[in-house]
Amino acid sequence: MPYDFILKDLNASKTQKKIGTDKGLAKIGDGVVNLAYSVAKSIYLTKSAANNAIIRTGWKVSKEVLSTALKNAGLKSFAKSRADAHDIADTAEAIIAYIWLNDFLSVKEMVDLLVDNLEGDLYKRTEETKNATNAFTVLLKHLKKYLPES
Amino acid sequence: MPYDFILKDLNASKTQKKIGTDKGLAKIGDGVVNLAYSVAKSIYLTKSAANNAIIRTGWKVSKEVLSTALKNAGLKSFAKSRADAHDIADTAEAIIAYIWLNDFLSVKEMVDLLVDNLEGDLYKRTEETKNATNAFTVLLKHLKKYLPES
Repeated sequence: MPYDFILKDLNASKTQKKIGTDKGLAKIGDGVVNLAYSVAKSIYLTKSAANNAIIRTGWKVSKEVLSTALKNAGLKSFAKSRADAHDIADTAEAIIAYIWLNDFLSVKEMVDLLVDNLEGDLYKRTEETKNATNAFTVLLKHLKKYLPES
Repeated sequence: MPYDFILKDLNASKTQKKIGTDKGLAKIGDGVVNLAYSVAKSIYLTKSAANNAIIRTGWKVSKEVLSTALKNAGLKSFAKSRADAHDIADTAEAIIAYIWLNDFLSVKEMVDLLVDNLEGDLYKRTEETKNATNAFTVLLKHLKKYLPES
């Protein structure tokens, strides 16, 4: 993978906290998360649309979705101590960026995982929040095997 | 490419305006643009950093950068008539999403193109705006060959 040099420091001494509290990774991860979810949502809505309509859309995944998913996936140990929901969401984004930059999973593989785990009516906001949280929980659980154990 | 079914309508009757004025594509493109630029900026800053520092960062690419780049690349014909800067930036994002979803270029190929065309001191805001505009102009010019001629 040509970009792992921007992870050299993290890969040299990998710890859960170093990855999970890296602010730059969280910024990059914000892009990965929103892109993957937007495409997953478009695919899901297109697949379930009446009369073969094609739906392209985007959604900024909320901090609430990401922080709940991180906790549900059992990855809260990557966040700093006394982290609030915002910090925990940043940790989810940092982990996802770490995985993507290391090429453990591509954006398209993340999209596929999300699509497979979306359900319900995403046009209803509270239902979307619940179902997006579930899908990100599955994604984050899947990433565990690439992450340090402490 | 597994996702071109969410482009089926656009690919069936491709026109510059249909691609360039698609609001859903613009939302997806927003993610591609910010992700590609954030990684490109991180790589550029890391390569030019003193004492082998590793820089990871993100930047929300402004509408101004994207609208100027689209005009400089000679792709304004993809925007709606009487488009303002915001509309024109959306057109740049829609084109970039169209290219990415069709798999003509990956995020990582876009990152490479941007890195190769970044220069100057990106820690200075006006200089970053100018240099990001140049890099996106080169990227958009490169995409022309994948796009319809009218």
